[in-house]
Amino acid sequence: MPLRMSTLFVRTLRDDPADAELPSHRLLVRAGFIRRAAPGIYSWLPLGYRVLRNIERVERTEMDAIGAQEVHFPALLPREPYEASNRWTEYGDGIFRLKDRKDGDYLLGPTHEEMFTLLVKDLYSSYKDLPVSIYQIQTKYRDEARPRAGLLRGREFVMKDSYSFDVTDEAFLVSYQAHRDAYVRIFDRLGLRYVIVAAMSGAMGGSASEEFLAIADNGEDTYVRSPGGYAANVEAVRTPVPDPVPYDDAPAAHAEHTPDTPTIATLVDHLNEAFPRTDRPWRSADTLKNVLVVLRHPDGTTEPVAIGLPGDRDVDLKRLSAQVEPAEVEPFTDDDFTRHPDLAKGYIGPGVLGEKNTSGIRYLLDPRVVEGTRWVTGADVTGSHVIDLVAGRDFSGDGTIEAAEIRAGDPAPDGSGPLELARGIEMGHIFQLGRRFAEALSLQVLDENGKLVTVTMGSYGVGVSRAVAAIVENSHDEAGIIWPREVAPADVHLVVTGKDPVKDPEIFAESERITAELEACGVSVLLDDRVKVSPGVKFTDAELIGVPTIVVVGRGLTDGVVEVKDRRSGDRIQVSVANVVTHLVEVVGAAQQGDP
Amino acid sequence: MPLRMSTLFVRTLRDDPADAELPSHRLLVRAGFIRRAAPGIYSWLPLGYRVLRNIERVERTEMDAIGAQEVHFPALLPREPYEASNRWTEYGDGIFRLKDRKDGDYLLGPTHEEMFTLLVKDLYSSYKDLPVSIYQIQTKYRDEARPRAGLLRGREFVMKDSYSFDVTDEAFLVSYQAHRDAYVRIFDRLGLRYVIVAAMSGAMGGSASEEFLAIADNGEDTYVRSPGGYAANVEAVRTPVPDPVPYDDAPAAHAEHTPDTPTIATLVDHLNEAFPRTDRPWRSADTLKNVLVVLRHPDGTTEPVAIGLPGDRDVDLKRLSAQVEPAEVEPFTDDDFTRHPDLAKGYIGPGVLGEKNTSGIRYLLDPRVVEGTRWVTGADVTGSHVIDLVAGRDFSGDGTIEAAEIRAGDPAPDGSGPLELARGIEMGHIFQLGRRFAEALSLQVLDENGKLVTVTMGSYGVGVSRAVAAIVENSHDEAGIIWPREVAPADVHLVVTGKDPVKDPEIFAESERITAELEACGVSVLLDDRVKVSPGVKFTDAELIGVPTIVVVGRGLTDGVVEVKDRRSGDRIQVSVANVVTHLVEVVGAAQQGDP
Repeated sequence: MPLRMSTLFVRTLRDDPADAELPSHRLLVRAGFIRRAAPGIYSWLPLGYRVLRNIERVERTEMDAIGAQEVHFPALLPREPYEASNRWTEYGDGIFRLKDRKDGDYLLGPTHEEMFTLLVKDLYSSYKDLPVSIYQIQTKYRDEARPRAGLLRGREFVMKDSYSFDVTDEAFLVSYQAHRDAYVRIFDRLGLRYVIVAAMSGAMGGSASEEFLAIADNGEDTYVRSPGGYAANVEAVRTPVPDPVPYDDAPAAHAEHTPDTPTIATLVDHLNEAFPRTDRPWRSADTLKNVLVVLRHPDGTTEPVAIGLPGDRDVDLKRLSAQVEPAEVEPFTDDDFTRHPDLAKGYIGPGVLGEKNTSGIRYLLDPRVVEGTRWVTGADVTGSHVIDLVAGRDFSGDGTIEAAEIRAGDPAPDGSGPLELARGIEMGHIFQLGRRFAEALSLQVLDENGKLVTVTMGSYGVGVSRAVAAIVENSHDEAGIIWPREVAPADVHLVVTGKDPVKDPEIFAESERITAELEACGVSVLLDDRVKVSPGVKFTDAELIGVPTIVVVGRGLTDGVVEVKDRRSGDRIQVSVANVVTHLVEVVGAAQQGDP
Repeated sequence: MPLRMSTLFVRTLRDDPADAELPSHRLLVRAGFIRRAAPGIYSWLPLGYRVLRNIERVERTEMDAIGAQEVHFPALLPREPYEASNRWTEYGDGIFRLKDRKDGDYLLGPTHEEMFTLLVKDLYSSYKDLPVSIYQIQTKYRDEARPRAGLLRGREFVMKDSYSFDVTDEAFLVSYQAHRDAYVRIFDRLGLRYVIVAAMSGAMGGSASEEFLAIADNGEDTYVRSPGGYAANVEAVRTPVPDPVPYDDAPAAHAEHTPDTPTIATLVDHLNEAFPRTDRPWRSADTLKNVLVVLRHPDGTTEPVAIGLPGDRDVDLKRLSAQVEPAEVEPFTDDDFTRHPDLAKGYIGPGVLGEKNTSGIRYLLDPRVVEGTRWVTGADVTGSHVIDLVAGRDFSGDGTIEAAEIRAGDPAPDGSGPLELARGIEMGHIFQLGRRFAEALSLQVLDENGKLVTVTMGSYGVGVSRAVAAIVENSHDEAGIIWPREVAPADVHLVVTGKDPVKDPEIFAESERITAELEACGVSVLLDDRVKVSPGVKFTDAELIGVPTIVVVGRGLTDGVVEVKDRRSGDRIQVSVANVVTHLVEVVGAAQQGDP
């Protein structure tokens, strides 16, 4: 049956919703695909739900194709398994928790490693049962601190998550590769422009992970690429560590009076004025900036931490957060300064920082601060800095941390040249979990020799509801959405330009006939059969809704033709009424074979 | 692709799970369709999920066929709309409530009248937009006091719920009838034996409702049927009110000493001994029993209530509960007696009961206690009863209540004879909501005259996950489940009786060939290709899993035949290998046309 605009439960809007910043959010609301129900929580209208189910179908068929089997877990989950894996605590405020009428603790599942592990443990006991990959397409919940960007960062969302179970690490790599290949096919079919990058594992733990990012200027994630093919989420970039610098001829460190220089900029100006270098001017990169933050651990305890990094770089909060997960990063407040009177705000240096120094504050250094490098940094006295302070000679940290911002042009870790930066939307994430969950929940099987071995796992997630928005970010123009054919809410949008069936009987009758024939050929039609709605309004709605092929039935009928327009290219051709069904079946079928 | 038992994620169990009482619960766990995750919360294994999705498909196609449009709401819902309808309070402990990280109140949706009402209000504004029917297939939540019976009374479950919106009551009746007809088709296709009965509306409010009950001895609901075709859930049965009885010649009421008669049985014995009637012995039906309960209202307040009913009947707690919803019924405790010293336990009578009498306790009478009926009842003094107490002359209540048990043989409300009783599982419920939700949430549209009118609504629910269990209750035997073909996890279960492909190459090869040909014809196959598993184990699993047609490929091959067994009838026939695919395509196709 065709969808009919005359009865379809939809209302398009001419104006952007007030709370929507991103094109995907604006267009999906304006075109009547979704409506906001609460912050980060959306209702799906008929057109949107069709797209969502099309994406589900693509993901389901590709999972089935690699032999993964579909199951379905509850969203409402008991606390105990998440207690065993320690994630009940680690998730902190990031999940929804609730109690039932008997005061039992539950959560709304953000991801299901624990439940899948327990189910395999329940059913399987031998190496002969493995490998197995199981998946679900399911509604998940995260209590995001800042739900935003419509479907891109929601609190209730649909994901496909799968899990692989293998006896050995070698066998696991086969399962991992099969999933990775399936994801490539899924992303191709969804028509997304994407990159695969090295990623941090975050709360998952595990040894390695890769992300599939939809390339989008509005993406929350930043990734890097090198000329040699290295690609990583900035969170996961490892800074190339420079060689140590000889420092035998380095002068002794000397403290100098540097009044009113609490910032790097004022300090560099002052240095160039009061202590000019002979070789070149001082640069901010010559200074060592010490940034203080507070880590809030999942158990509620807090810990101050100092980060020492070259003064020309800022701390990247996302990179820092990724390193310290599951702890959360909070600002170092005036109260914290009061608690640490030996910290001279604006003039803090390694003299007091470090677990063995007076402050006792853990001091982590940027990887560039290698032995022998010389720095200007705070003298721990207001209005004073130390010059010629040599790393390894005069100070050292309690470890290193990848917290400094990555900049375009930074040397790539693979040594192939400068890094490029771009932005993307995290659409898929595949994790080499190792044995973390199998160990926590005692998932073991008997191997060939009758010995109990712990199972090796992978977990593989890909957005479903988020893909709806990512596709729109990738594929829209000023007029509206441009759906890739595989996920479009219909194959053809047929605009009836007549006023009503009484005034324009032929236009309405021909439209109905073409629609019926198309549907009989398996081509789904969104038929704009509204009466007393102007052709202009209908065209505008068709562009906004974004079905890939638009057919206009109107005055051309007197010449025996209708217009067929490609939504993406804007190309229009006149097709004879006699041939239009055959033509459209070809357009739809050809596209389904080939392009996204 | 066929399902292969050699790799299928399933484990059948020979023993019943300890916590399962009902056949559906036992068999679905033993056959590997579901696993318990928490009380009233289940995980779906691949076979179970296939059945669940088949049921979804049936319900979706029948909804689409009446022009209802599919949408999808969140399960995590903000408090405000439910506050407006008063259901945030009315649901009491029956829903899951939670708070987000900003202390906002949310619930897990038990049903979505409020959200649908608001969505229609958001999109529509004119009578021209109506009628519209919208539906969703969605996971719902209820915090049941006693989750039990596996999928039959779960706390997380899948339902299809639809809602109709009309301008007038007449138009609404058309929408209601369309849904009712669609439900009849759904139940027919699901292969359920069912009845449609008048029902109570419960927390929905509204003017009328009907239930679709699957007929099942283990059902939680009891319904009645009359010879004339009246059918109702016992909760909804209206007792025929007898005509008033003349009482001009009735003697005056007289209190009598009746020591040690705190129960109806001891009282009747005592009456027959101490005060024998001349016409016939005293019966328990001659006594008026007064039962005290406490109502707990959703706002937390409590209220004692007395129910007066013939002594031969007990209060039916479900009938009483249905009358007083959303209040909950609690027992009248010793503390309550202490608080009401004028109540003589075991000898309570209308002398103190009623809002205008000393106790002030609201006193509700069974409809049979009509004017002129004569009763023996408590004299409000321990060891005393009143005889010849005439209703309407000596006492009256504050109202009537349908709380007495219904018994087989009771006169039917339609006057057609005695009632029959049977049990069923509530599978569908259709409600004439009227304007309750539209008024609470101000859903109005402009009518033809430009006047704002409040919309009339219907709501229509049918179980999806519950249907899985109800079908099994309806359709199983000692050996296992017998799936109706429309919902079966596969069309054909093919048992390979060979030991392994090396020892029995022909059996395995023929099985694979038949399977491949069947799949090519669109017949889905569950292929038991396990090696070194005995034919006996495979047969047992096939009967347990319940695919409607079982094919056995084995020694018969030497005679060119395989065995085809009908799971329901147990009939077996030998079919030549050459014809078996054609034969099975016919069996599957014919069944899909005709029988459930």
